[in-house]
Amino acid sequence: MESFTLEQLAKLIGGTPLGSFDFKISYLQDSKVCDNTSICYVKDKKFIDTLSSEAGAVITTTALVEDIGSTQNFIVVDDPYLAYAKTSKVFFNAYKASNEAVETKYGKHVHIGQNTVINSNCVIGDNVIIHDNVSIYSCTDIGDNSIIHSGSVIGSDGFGYAPNNLGWHKIEHLGGVKIGKNVEIGAKTAVDRGALGDTVIEDGVKIDNQVHIAHNTIIGENTAIAGQSGTAGSVKIGKNCQIAGQVGIIGHIEIADNVVVMAKTLVTKSLKEAGAYSGVMPIQKHKDSLKFIAKIKK
Amino acid sequence: MESFTLEQLAKLIGGTPLGSFDFKISYLQDSKVCDNTSICYVKDKKFIDTLSSEAGAVITTTALVEDIGSTQNFIVVDDPYLAYAKTSKVFFNAYKASNEAVETKYGKHVHIGQNTVINSNCVIGDNVIIHDNVSIYSCTDIGDNSIIHSGSVIGSDGFGYAPNNLGWHKIEHLGGVKIGKNVEIGAKTAVDRGALGDTVIEDGVKIDNQVHIAHNTIIGENTAIAGQSGTAGSVKIGKNCQIAGQVGIIGHIEIADNVVVMAKTLVTKSLKEAGAYSGVMPIQKHKDSLKFIAKIKK
Amino acid sequence: MESFTLEQLAKLIGGTPLGSFDFKISYLQDSKVCDNTSICYVKDKKFIDTLSSEAGAVITTTALVEDIGSTQNFIVVDDPYLAYAKTSKVFFNAYKASNEAVETKYGKHVHIGQNTVINSNCVIGDNVIIHDNVSIYSCTDIGDNSIIHSGSVIGSDGFGYAPNNLGWHKIEHLGGVKIGKNVEIGAKTAVDRGALGDTVIEDGVKIDNQVHIAHNTIIGENTAIAGQSGTAGSVKIGKNCQIAGQVGIIGHIEIADNVVVMAKTLVTKSLKEAGAYSGVMPIQKHKDSLKFIAKIKK
Repeated sequence: MESFTLEQLAKLIGGTPLGSFDFKISYLQDSKVCDNTSICYVKDKKFIDTLSSEAGAVITTTALVEDIGSTQNFIVVDDPYLAYAKTSKVFFNAYKASNEAVETKYGKHVHIGQNTVINSNCVIGDNVIIHDNVSIYSCTDIGDNSIIHSGSVIGSDGFGYAPNNLGWHKIEHLGGVKIGKNVEIGAKTAVDRGALGDTVIEDGVKIDNQVHIAHNTIIGENTAIAGQSGTAGSVKIGKNCQIAGQVGIIGHIEIADNVVVMAKTLVTKSLKEAGAYSGVMPIQKHKDSLKFIAKIKK
Repeated sequence: MESFTLEQLAKLIGGTPLGSFDFKISYLQDSKVCDNTSICYVKDKKFIDTLSSEAGAVITTTALVEDIGSTQNFIVVDDPYLAYAKTSKVFFNAYKASNEAVETKYGKHVHIGQNTVINSNCVIGDNVIIHDNVSIYSCTDIGDNSIIHSGSVIGSDGFGYAPNNLGWHKIEHLGGVKIGKNVEIGAKTAVDRGALGDTVIEDGVKIDNQVHIAHNTIIGENTAIAGQSGTAGSVKIGKNCQIAGQVGIIGHIEIADNVVVMAKTLVTKSLKEAGAYSGVMPIQKHKDSLKFIAKIKK
Repeated sequence: MESFTLEQLAKLIGGTPLGSFDFKISYLQDSKVCDNTSICYVKDKKFIDTLSSEAGAVITTTALVEDIGSTQNFIVVDDPYLAYAKTSKVFFNAYKASNEAVETKYGKHVHIGQNTVINSNCVIGDNVIIHDNVSIYSCTDIGDNSIIHSGSVIGSDGFGYAPNNLGWHKIEHLGGVKIGKNVEIGAKTAVDRGALGDTVIEDGVKIDNQVHIAHNTIIGENTAIAGQSGTAGSVKIGKNCQIAGQVGIIGHIEIADNVVVMAKTLVTKSLKEAGAYSGVMPIQKHKDSLKFIAKIKK
């Protein structure tokens, strides 16, 4: 594994090293789990509480350095999120190479459809059925007895960019996808890989067609998600939930166990209690809708 | 065709046979069309009225047995829907084998794109164009002059599971897809196969990109469905309808002929009259939306 | 290039020639840019203002002929839109042949994934990454450093039909797709080709998974569009916009630069000012939603 000193990395991402300049950094990790071989970033005071006490080094601002007690090594920057994006690029080649070096392992009685592509460093369990024209990126695990229908994509990059003065700086995605046992994923569904850490679909989850599962989403056991629903990044859905069709879930939301979200609802806040939720305009004859809208505007 | 006696099948699905224990069952069918070679299930009193008078045997509860006059053979269970899921599994291997035994037939002047997969027991009409990277599951018929754009999937399993004490029991899908003549299906659209009986797209239907057509949907002649719309199971849409983009239609809904559903509307009830329907919150400056939402919550 | 005289073309589409019967027509073009080698159509008075003064010939109605001062050659029909659809068919074979005659050009350091199909007459820039199972139709340009994720489709036909007395008459799509530099397109996204002229995605645009970009959409520099959003035909989106997930934009809308559209909003009118817009029913416990809907219906 290629590694960088604090000083080298600071130079590569345009920041100022603070602490032990020779401190050796081998990975970029999420701030919650960062260990002493790794660096993470903290862009806001609110993330300090959950910062791992083992973090080897932290990319952050001058203002936040003093608030972070546990760590001695920093790369000080103006914009930690942009610096994180640049750091992801630095570690991406090593990540890619380490994936390419490992062949994919297949369990017993696996069915792989025609024109399905499975990249390196995946683990495919026993009795897995992957239908035709499926695309599996590297670093995807699929548990025993799971089924993936045609045209689905597992492990594509999440939609992550840091704004810079020219537009958008791509965040390279250094995580994978972990799919449990007895999972079924419908046709033309997309599951993005994690940015740092994995996107996780637990045992017994059922996902319908054309669902979009964003990076670092976690879906609890036996939850069912119907067609054309989607999550934004880092959503956590509990166990035994039922998410109906065309539902949207905005980023960083938590949904408790045993929640039902009815069709086409947009989940804009965490749902902490079990039960049924909805939020959709009722269908009416169009002339009645127009009257109602006129009233709203007054 | 493999067949089972009433007694054998009852044992396989954990039920109690009632009637002629040697009665021979070759198929699992929908209760409306079940014939005397077959078994069906009735989970609720309301389905008794439409139960075929020819049904060879019925999976149902003790309570419903007395209400079903026309049939002499039963498998009595606590949960007919779960028993149906188990029965679908029993008949699935025979269904699969019968599909695999029949080669697909191609009409004249058919164009098949690169990396397109067409499985067995399909019928592809004259002058059909199927673009690249399309996935056609077995038991799909496509009528003359129809066009399927790249990346679409026809015949994937519907989203059907019976809840059991461990999570979800998969319902195997024993139907196919029938697509008429002069149909066009856009890119990345998914059409699921029927559970029992077929998903049907009649002549002249036009379907845009990324549409989701669930199992046992029926779409009437010359109806047009715009991008990213979707149906849940067993929806019936009439002729000459116009379904705009991002519309959702919940399960078991009927839509009359000549209905227009405007963009992003959720159809939550049957639409029995022709005409235009809508139901969408108007777009406003976000600060005005927030005021309106605050009012709603009062 | 095959060409037709005014008289020949009128006969083929069932119209009446007016002007110079021998006038030679080589292309079908959009009325705004039609030159003197070409024909266009005008179906409504409001399009006369933007009609090119160079138009070689115009398909239109008797009533509109007198209002069009600049042109001498017409094909007079009852229904110009249907006649346009028929004309697109006439020119389609020549369009297709001209695409097939030109090999696709590849820049340096291009990565093409497995089972990806790239048709003829495309231009793929330097350092482009196209992942697995992607379908690129002919006449697609992709600029330097752009990335296309697995399962996406670029260049499929738009959803365009003219109603006729039997149902729908397909409009053949004679344009292509122009994708700029530093663009990223997620998994399972579909970008339709232009009907006349191109669909355009400018430099630095970022598009997430399962987005639907309809024919002749224009997306300005550095705009980002999140998952499962879609545009209808001929939408024009400005620069530096942020379109959140599951947003819909109806046809022929213009969106100014620096607009933010929040998740699941339907854009039903042009947005001429920068700023944030939204329009979504708030999520509530389902019993509270039912009360609210009951009030609306009063």
